[in-house]
Amino acid sequence: MNPSYEQAQPWSISQWLNTVAPISLESLRGKVTVLHAFQMLCPGCVSHCIPQAKLIHTAFPSDKVQVIGLHSVFEHHEAMTPVALQAFVHEYRLGFPIGIDQADPADPIPLTMRAYRLQGTPSLILIDKAGYIRLHHFGQIDDLRVGAVIGQLLTE
Amino acid sequence: MNPSYEQAQPWSISQWLNTVAPISLESLRGKVTVLHAFQMLCPGCVSHCIPQAKLIHTAFPSDKVQVIGLHSVFEHHEAMTPVALQAFVHEYRLGFPIGIDQADPADPIPLTMRAYRLQGTPSLILIDKAGYIRLHHFGQIDDLRVGAVIGQLLTE
Amino acid sequence: MNPSYEQAQPWSISQWLNTVAPISLESLRGKVTVLHAFQMLCPGCVSHCIPQAKLIHTAFPSDKVQVIGLHSVFEHHEAMTPVALQAFVHEYRLGFPIGIDQADPADPIPLTMRAYRLQGTPSLILIDKAGYIRLHHFGQIDDLRVGAVIGQLLTE
Amino acid sequence: MNPSYEQAQPWSISQWLNTVAPISLESLRGKVTVLHAFQMLCPGCVSHCIPQAKLIHTAFPSDKVQVIGLHSVFEHHEAMTPVALQAFVHEYRLGFPIGIDQADPADPIPLTMRAYRLQGTPSLILIDKAGYIRLHHFGQIDDLRVGAVIGQLLTE
Repeated sequence: MNPSYEQAQPWSISQWLNTVAPISLESLRGKVTVLHAFQMLCPGCVSHCIPQAKLIHTAFPSDKVQVIGLHSVFEHHEAMTPVALQAFVHEYRLGFPIGIDQADPADPIPLTMRAYRLQGTPSLILIDKAGYIRLHHFGQIDDLRVGAVIGQLLTE
Repeated sequence: MNPSYEQAQPWSISQWLNTVAPISLESLRGKVTVLHAFQMLCPGCVSHCIPQAKLIHTAFPSDKVQVIGLHSVFEHHEAMTPVALQAFVHEYRLGFPIGIDQADPADPIPLTMRAYRLQGTPSLILIDKAGYIRLHHFGQIDDLRVGAVIGQLLTE
Repeated sequence: MNPSYEQAQPWSISQWLNTVAPISLESLRGKVTVLHAFQMLCPGCVSHCIPQAKLIHTAFPSDKVQVIGLHSVFEHHEAMTPVALQAFVHEYRLGFPIGIDQADPADPIPLTMRAYRLQGTPSLILIDKAGYIRLHHFGQIDDLRVGAVIGQLLTE
Repeated sequence: MNPSYEQAQPWSISQWLNTVAPISLESLRGKVTVLHAFQMLCPGCVSHCIPQAKLIHTAFPSDKVQVIGLHSVFEHHEAMTPVALQAFVHEYRLGFPIGIDQADPADPIPLTMRAYRLQGTPSLILIDKAGYIRLHHFGQIDDLRVGAVIGQLLTE
C-alpha cells in the first residue's frame, strides 16, 4: 500500500439507522466504502449529494461497495435531532445505513467530523478495501469522477 | 364577482417568520396572494414548489403579488418543529413571510389545512384581489400555468 | 389601445411546416400569438426555448393562444436548410406551425428577423389580440414571466 | 486478456473534424478509448450523451483517455451532412475528435455502425488499452456507471 495514504479513523456513532447492528469500519475490509457526510438541512446535500449516494447504493452490488451516511451536525443542533433525521430518512427513502455522528458536549463539531477533519457538508470520503482514504472531497463532485475512483478501487 | 368562486377563509397561524407583524388575509385585499402550503420535510415541496415560490416572490413587485408560505404539518410533528423550520428557512434562504399553521391538539391536521381542505403538501392556492380562491392545486404545477393565472388576476 | 405599443409587422415566410396553409398575422386577430424565433442549431433554443414553446402549445387552448415557430437563419445557412429543418421538426416532435423566415439574397439576416429587429435567437415575441407587440425578448426568459404576460393578454 | 472480450474493429471514417490527422484505433493502444456514436439531430444524444462525452473529455487527461465522436448517420442523410455537422460542432463547442462514419451507397446504415453492430444512437463503446470492447451500450447510461468502467480500465 502506498504509504502516503492515510488510514481511515474509526467513526464515533451515537445511533444507527437502517441497520440492525452497528457497522464498524473494520467490518468493511474487503469492500469499497463510500462515506457520505451530510446534514439533513444542508441544501446542497439534499439536491445533489443524497441523490448521488442513493445512486451509488443502487448501482453497485452491496458485497463490493458499501454506502454509509454520516449525519454530522455542526449547526442548528436543535433542529437536526435524531427524530427529525428519522423523518427525513423516511421521506427521502434513504435505504443505506446512516450513522449519527457522536456529538461533543464541548464543541459544536461532532467527533467523527473532527477525526476526519471535514470542512463541512457535504463531504465524500472513499475508503479502499484495506481501510485507507483514497478520496476526501468537500462540496459537490460529479458522478463521473466519483465513479472513476470507485471503479479503480474495485480492481485492487 | 363570479358567485361560484369561494371566499378564502381566514388562516390560523400560531407563529410567523420573516415578518415583523402577523399578516391577515384581509390586509392583502388589492393584491394577488400566493398561498404556498408546504412541509419542510416534503421532498416534492423542497425540489419544486419552494423554488417556485421563491421565483414568484422575486418576479413580481411586492405591492402587487404577496407570497405567503404556510407550514402545514400533518405528519412527523416531532420533527418539523418551529425551531427546525427556522433553521430550514435560514438554510434555504426563504425571504417571504411564512406562517406556521395552527396545530389542532385533537387532530394531526392543522386548522388552516382543514379550513382550506388541503389534500396534502405541496398545495398552491391563488387568491384574487377581492379575497376569492381562483386556483386550488394539490401537487406540483408548472411555472407557465401558475404565471398565467397570476397574470390574469393582476389585470382584474 | 396604448399608443406606445408597436404594431407587429407582417412576416415574410418562404415555406411553412405543420400547417396546411400559410398563416397570416391578420388571421390571428382575436388570439394571443406567441412568435418563437429560433435556429435549429442554436443550443439555447434547443435546450430551453423549444421546450418552452412546446409547453405553451399544449398548455393553452389553440383557439386562444397560437404558437408560431419562426426559423430565422442568420448563420450557417448551408447547414440549416429546409430539409434539415424538416428532419429536426420530426425528431423533436414539434407540433405547432413553423415558418421559414424568408432569406434575403443580399444579407445573411432574413426578412422577418430584420423587420422585427431581432437581436438573435432565441427571441420571443408576444402579440396581443389586436396585433400589437407586448413582449419582445432576446435570450432565455423563464416560464413564469412568459405565463404572466400570456395570462394578462388573454383577459383583454 | 479475457478471451470472451471482442476485439474492436477498425473504423471507417470518410472525414475527420477536430484533428489534424486521421486517428486509427491502433494508434490508441495504451489509452482507454471512449467511442461515442451519435447523430446531430438525435434529441437524446444532444441532451444527455454529448454533454457526457464533453465531461469525459475534460475530466480525464488526454494521454490516458481518448474521446472519439462517431457521427453515424442512418436516417435523415440529406439533413445531417458534413457541412451541417461542422456547424453543429462549432455551436455546441465540441472539442474532441469526431469521425464521420463512412456512408454505404447501398444501405442507410454506415460502415462502422454496421461493423460495431450498433442498434442506433446514442451508443457508447468503451475500448480498453489493448483494443478490446469492454462496454457496448445503446441509449443513455448514467455518468456514475460510465465513470466506474473507465476507472477500472485505467488500472489495467
